[in-house]
Amino acid sequence: MLKFDVLAKDTSSHARRGTLTLNHGVVQTPIFMPVGTYGTVKGVMPRSLEEMGAQIILGNTFHLWMRPGLDVMQSFGGLHDFERWNKPILTDSGGFQVWSLGAMRKITEEGVTFASPVNGDKLFMSPEVSMQIQTTLNSDIVMQLDECTPYETKGHLTTEAEARKSMEMSRRWAVRSKDEFARLENPNALFGIVQGGMFTNLRQESLDALVEMNFPGYAVGGVSVGEPKDQMLEIMAHTPHRLPEHKPRYLMGVGTPEDLVQGVADGVDMFDCVMPTRNARNGTLFTRFGDLKIRNARHKADHGPLDSTCTCYTCAGHTRPDGTSSGGFSRAYLHHLDRCGEMLGPMLTTVHNLHYYLNLMREVREALEVGQFGAFRAKFKEDRARGV
Amino acid sequence: MLKFDVLAKDTSSHARRGTLTLNHGVVQTPIFMPVGTYGTVKGVMPRSLEEMGAQIILGNTFHLWMRPGLDVMQSFGGLHDFERWNKPILTDSGGFQVWSLGAMRKITEEGVTFASPVNGDKLFMSPEVSMQIQTTLNSDIVMQLDECTPYETKGHLTTEAEARKSMEMSRRWAVRSKDEFARLENPNALFGIVQGGMFTNLRQESLDALVEMNFPGYAVGGVSVGEPKDQMLEIMAHTPHRLPEHKPRYLMGVGTPEDLVQGVADGVDMFDCVMPTRNARNGTLFTRFGDLKIRNARHKADHGPLDSTCTCYTCAGHTRPDGTSSGGFSRAYLHHLDRCGEMLGPMLTTVHNLHYYLNLMREVREALEVGQFGAFRAKFKEDRARGV
Repeated sequence: MLKFDVLAKDTSSHARRGTLTLNHGVVQTPIFMPVGTYGTVKGVMPRSLEEMGAQIILGNTFHLWMRPGLDVMQSFGGLHDFERWNKPILTDSGGFQVWSLGAMRKITEEGVTFASPVNGDKLFMSPEVSMQIQTTLNSDIVMQLDECTPYETKGHLTTEAEARKSMEMSRRWAVRSKDEFARLENPNALFGIVQGGMFTNLRQESLDALVEMNFPGYAVGGVSVGEPKDQMLEIMAHTPHRLPEHKPRYLMGVGTPEDLVQGVADGVDMFDCVMPTRNARNGTLFTRFGDLKIRNARHKADHGPLDSTCTCYTCAGHTRPDGTSSGGFSRAYLHHLDRCGEMLGPMLTTVHNLHYYLNLMREVREALEVGQFGAFRAKFKEDRARGV
Repeated sequence: MLKFDVLAKDTSSHARRGTLTLNHGVVQTPIFMPVGTYGTVKGVMPRSLEEMGAQIILGNTFHLWMRPGLDVMQSFGGLHDFERWNKPILTDSGGFQVWSLGAMRKITEEGVTFASPVNGDKLFMSPEVSMQIQTTLNSDIVMQLDECTPYETKGHLTTEAEARKSMEMSRRWAVRSKDEFARLENPNALFGIVQGGMFTNLRQESLDALVEMNFPGYAVGGVSVGEPKDQMLEIMAHTPHRLPEHKPRYLMGVGTPEDLVQGVADGVDMFDCVMPTRNARNGTLFTRFGDLKIRNARHKADHGPLDSTCTCYTCAGHTRPDGTSSGGFSRAYLHHLDRCGEMLGPMLTTVHNLHYYLNLMREVREALEVGQFGAFRAKFKEDRARGV
C-alpha cells in the first residue's frame, strides 16, 4: 500500500511538504533515506539510526540476493526482521549493480545474464526476477528494473540515439515489472523510474509513458552518474515537478546537502545517497557552516565539537533520564581516533553525518510548514558558505 | 585517593567481594576492566560501555604518549575529558610496550632509550618519566614502571637467575616510581607490581619487598606471557592471596572466562584483558554455554541469538521508555555481517563479548554476596562445558 498526502506547498518553488504512508509506517517528506546495502547502514547501530530520526532506509536487492541469499531472506519473512528494522524500507531493482559488472554480463531484451561475483554461479536478472526478489525482501517500496543510462558509453558521451534505446528498454521493462508485481500480489508499492540521459525531450517521453501506466510513485534515475553539475541541475529542474503532483517523487543517488535543498525546490520528496556514510568513513564531515576534513592537522588540539549547532551524540552527547550524560566529543579526539585508525572514529563520524542529513531535511520540513522555505534556502546557502 | 573495603569473603576459597573508591567513583569488585588502549575501547561507544555496566577502563600510557601526545592530554587536563569517560581509569606504566619494541630499544638501570615507532624520535622511558606521563593522564590508578619478565629469554626458558635479575630491577624501579609519584603530588593511587617469572620463591621475595613499601594496591604481572596454563595457574594460586587482605589485587592481562573465575577464587579483585574485544573482532564469541565462532556456516540460517540467557543489546535488544524496541539480532544476521565484512558485525559482537565479561563478574559478585560462590563456580563450569 501507499498513500501520499501533500500537506503544504511552497509558493516560490516546486517544494512541498507531505506524508507518505507505507505498510511499515508513515514517512514525513521531504526525506533523506540512509543506504543500507547489505542489510546494515554502514557503521551505525539500528538504535542510533532510530534516535537520529531515520524514517525509511534502503536495501540493495542485488547485494542481498548474493548474500545472505533468498533462502535466508525467505526464512525471515523479508528484510525487516532479518536486520531488525521495523520502519519502512525501499529496495532498488538490482539493475545498477548488474550493469556495474561490466564484461562479466550480457544484456538482451529478455534480461541480463551474469556470473555471480561471490561464487561464479551463472545467474539471470530480468524485470520478473527483480520483482520476485523484492517480493521476498518485502520492502515497502519496490523499484522497477531499469537500465541506468550512463553519461559516457564506450568512451564517448552517450548520444541521444543511445540514450533513447536505453530509455525505451527501461520503459518496456517497466511494463513487465508492473505485470509481475501484480501477478505476485505484492502488497507494497512499485515505483517507475524516469530515464532519458541528459536529454530533456527523452526525459519527457519517459515520464509521459510511465505516468500513463499509473505507478503509485516515481523516481528520477540516471542522474549523478558522472555528468557535470550543470547538467544534473538541468535534469533536476526539468523532470521532478512534471511528475504527478499527488504522487511521491524520488531522486535516486543524490547528493550533497546543496543538491538536496535544490532538489526539494525542484519538487523532489525523497533522496538517497551513500555520501554521508562514505564521507564519514573518509573523514569528510558535513556541518552547518561547510564541510570539514577531520584529518587536517589544525584539529589536533581543538576542544570544540564538529558543529556547535549540532545535537547529535558525537557533537552534543546524550543526557539520560537519570541526569547522567555521555558523548559530546572534541575535534581533537575525533582527529586522534582517525589518526590511530580506531573503529570509534568512523562510528562517531557516521552518526554525525547521518544526523546532519536527517536534520537538514527536518529543518526543510519545518520551513515548508511555516511557509518559510525561501528564507530557509537563503540562510542555508549563507551558512554553508561561511566556512567551518 | 584509594579506599578498599572487603564486604564479604568466601569460606572455601580466597574470593572476596569489595568496593574500591577512587577519585572518579566507586568500583564494585571483583571487576573486569575493558582495555581502551588509545583512549577508546575498540569498537564500542562510551554510552554502550556505560549501559553494559563498565565501572573502570584501562588506557595505555605508551600509546597515549605517542598519540595524541602529552601536549594534547595536558590541554584536556587528562584522559577522562579527552575520551569523555567520567568513571575511573587505570593506566599501565608503558613498560610492556617499550620492551615489545625489541631491537629498537636499549635498557639500562636508569631506564630505556628507544626510537618512537610513530616518527622515529629518540625517546627515554624511566620510572620517573612513566609517573610524569601518568600524572598528566590523571588516571585513578597508576602502575609502577616494571620489567615484565618474559617466559622465554633469548630462545630458552627464562632461568631463575635471569628472572631474579629482572625482578630485582622492577623492585628498584618500584622505589623510584613511588618517590616520583610522591614528588609530583599525584592525587591518585599507585600500584606496585609483583614479578618473579615462574618462580614462586622469587614471587614471594618480590611480594615481601613491595608490601614493605606499603602501596595502596598490588598487581601480579608477568603472567599470560606465553607460559603453559598450569604454570599460570600455579602463580595465580601462589601470589594473590598472599598480598595484604585489605588492599586491592589486580591480575594483569588475564584472561579467559575460566581464568577470571579461577582468579577470583585465588583472591584477585581486578582483571583486564583484550580478549573480549579482540575475539569479538575475530568472530569468537563468549556465551554461557561455551564459545562460538560466528563464521561457522552452521549459523547461516539460525534465527536464535548468540546466547538466549544474555541481556545485551545484540542478543536481547533494548526496550525504550516509550515501549519501542531495538536490537536483538540473530546468529544468521551476525554471520551475514561477518561474511560481508560490515562494520556493524564487530560493533555488535564487541557489545556482546564485553557484556558477557562484565555480566560474569556481576554474577560472581552476587554469588559472593549471598555466600554461594562455590555453587556458582560449579554451575559456571558445567554450563560452559555444555556447548553452544
